Amino acid sequence: MSTSRQIHLVRRPKGTPEPADFAVVEVETPDAGEGEVQVAGVLMSVDPYMRPRLDADQALGEPLLGGGIGRIVQSRNPKFVEGDLVRHGAGFRERFVSDGRGLAVLRPDPDLPLTVHLHALGGTGLTAYGGLLQVGALADGEQVFVSTAGGAVGSTAAQIAKLKGCYVVGSTGSDEKARWLRDDVRLDAVINYKQEPIGEALARATPKGIDVYFENVGGAHLDAALPRMNVRGRIPVCGMISVYNGGGEPVRGLFNLIYRRVRMEGFVASDFTHLNAAFQSDMTGWLKSGQVKYQETVLDGFERAPEGLIGLFEGRNTGKMLIRLTDDGGDAL
Amino acid sequence: MSTSRQIHLVRRPKGTPEPADFAVVEVETPDAGEGEVQVAGVLMSVDPYMRPRLDADQALGEPLLGGGIGRIVQSRNPKFVEGDLVRHGAGFRERFVSDGRGLAVLRPDPDLPLTVHLHALGGTGLTAYGGLLQVGALADGEQVFVSTAGGAVGSTAAQIAKLKGCYVVGSTGSDEKARWLRDDVRLDAVINYKQEPIGEALARATPKGIDVYFENVGGAHLDAALPRMNVRGRIPVCGMISVYNGGGEPVRGLFNLIYRRVRMEGFVASDFTHLNAAFQSDMTGWLKSGQVKYQETVLDGFERAPEGLIGLFEGRNTGKMLIRLTDDGGDAL
Repeated sequence: MSTSRQIHLVRRPKGTPEPADFAVVEVETPDAGEGEVQVAGVLMSVDPYMRPRLDADQALGEPLLGGGIGRIVQSRNPKFVEGDLVRHGAGFRERFVSDGRGLAVLRPDPDLPLTVHLHALGGTGLTAYGGLLQVGALADGEQVFVSTAGGAVGSTAAQIAKLKGCYVVGSTGSDEKARWLRDDVRLDAVINYKQEPIGEALARATPKGIDVYFENVGGAHLDAALPRMNVRGRIPVCGMISVYNGGGEPVRGLFNLIYRRVRMEGFVASDFTHLNAAFQSDMTGWLKSGQVKYQETVLDGFERAPEGLIGLFEGRNTGKMLIRLTDDGGDAL
Repeated sequence: MSTSRQIHLVRRPKGTPEPADFAVVEVETPDAGEGEVQVAGVLMSVDPYMRPRLDADQALGEPLLGGGIGRIVQSRNPKFVEGDLVRHGAGFRERFVSDGRGLAVLRPDPDLPLTVHLHALGGTGLTAYGGLLQVGALADGEQVFVSTAGGAVGSTAAQIAKLKGCYVVGSTGSDEKARWLRDDVRLDAVINYKQEPIGEALARATPKGIDVYFENVGGAHLDAALPRMNVRGRIPVCGMISVYNGGGEPVRGLFNLIYRRVRMEGFVASDFTHLNAAFQSDMTGWLKSGQVKYQETVLDGFERAPEGLIGLFEGRNTGKMLIRLTDDGGDAL
């Protein structure tokens, strides 16, 4: 028996979450019983999709729903060895006991940092890969628009489209991210939607229209994209960050779906488990060759998870937002 | 050489079209030259889809884009015999000369009125059939919601869904149409959206959610349907009559597409030409057996086409709106 910490939701956020919506709670953590393991968190993933859950299936007074990478520190389950790294979806808990369900042993690639297994090589990357290639049915050389292209999923989707020979336009909300997308990622056009109206800028940037709009924003971004869609265009809907914090921006241009026969379709990463082997192989190669670049913002300290989540909606992250629980971030293992 | 009339658009409507946006213009009509036919209009179809074209590809001072059934009155083209009935898309012209392209000889079913070939057995019916079965990928026994269920396309879609063993909810804007849908068409639930808020009414009427929403309205109707959609639901987008006359109702609930993996997809009748043979066969049977019922509003007089079009947006039609150009409506042929 020992003690460890959890991040709880203590009240439902009104609009953008605030620190007082969360609490760091100390709890007793039992030792692993027969058939069980005890896991110590190493890294946790903070993602925009967590926001709508705070209004929905996230229970009050319970650990935040989410996942990360942990280390087996006690094992009485033959499938796990002490020292193993595992992916888990056990929520924001510093340490927890599990019967092993929902844990997947992770053999990190020795030539890549552990953190990429929580973004480019994790759910983030698979979301971009499946959303663009399966739901978006991307064909080589098409015209592509990616919103929040400076973010973890967006930047990965934009680069996969570039690797497929597409013309790729990205939108982002800061000059720094715009510069990265232009100079390092080398997108064909980059829009800072805080500097110019998204509708006019997108019209200028897409002289051949849009075949695939990888949608992360909704609202004004979607209304900018809809009249630019080509016939038989696709809008894979990954997220709508503009509406997660309530109210949100209305959409008025959906009638453009009709005559252009545009398909708009939602998805989540778990739809793509059948693609995971191909994805891991492709993405490992792209990361090692430098064809897919990434940025990450790592906050040190378990208790900073609420700060990380809130920061996502204020654009405080550069690329993927992660929480590191241990000094070595697991890399020493 | 003779004279005949055309309906022209003379100015772009602001909002709902007004009579003064149109003019009845007398023109000279040449006789059919070598390889040509002269066609005299018999029936014309007036449809909601015509409204957005008035802002787009409809030229000013030219005949309204649209179609109908005409009769060959002169033929110097071996493919057509004088007296033949033809379907045409030649616009709102009382009489016109054609080289035959875009004309399709119509052999009307002797046991059905000619008018049905412009709705249940025409583009209206094919739109409902293809939209529901192909784009909507309707499976037997699913939960279905149809908006403007009292209209030509909507009532056909709702009845096809009933024939497939589905639970079908329809919305309409008048008590008279609601009564017809409840008592004659026998839908499972009918909502008069002018009498009760569509969101609450739809939630009550769809205890098992919605697998297919056949979308004709947009705006508040779409926002009512989105939170009711089941996982892997489909929203075939046939029309958005709420926005055709400008401004329109905003949509705020599109984030519901994401976690439910809903697919929303636009279409037009011409996408379904490959289904036409199956459609004609199915629909002829359903009409003769009375399994598909219809209503129609026929205005007598070529010059009443603008009145018919405007009436669509004021709910003045019961079922399909048609303009009859000749006393016998072609039935005497």
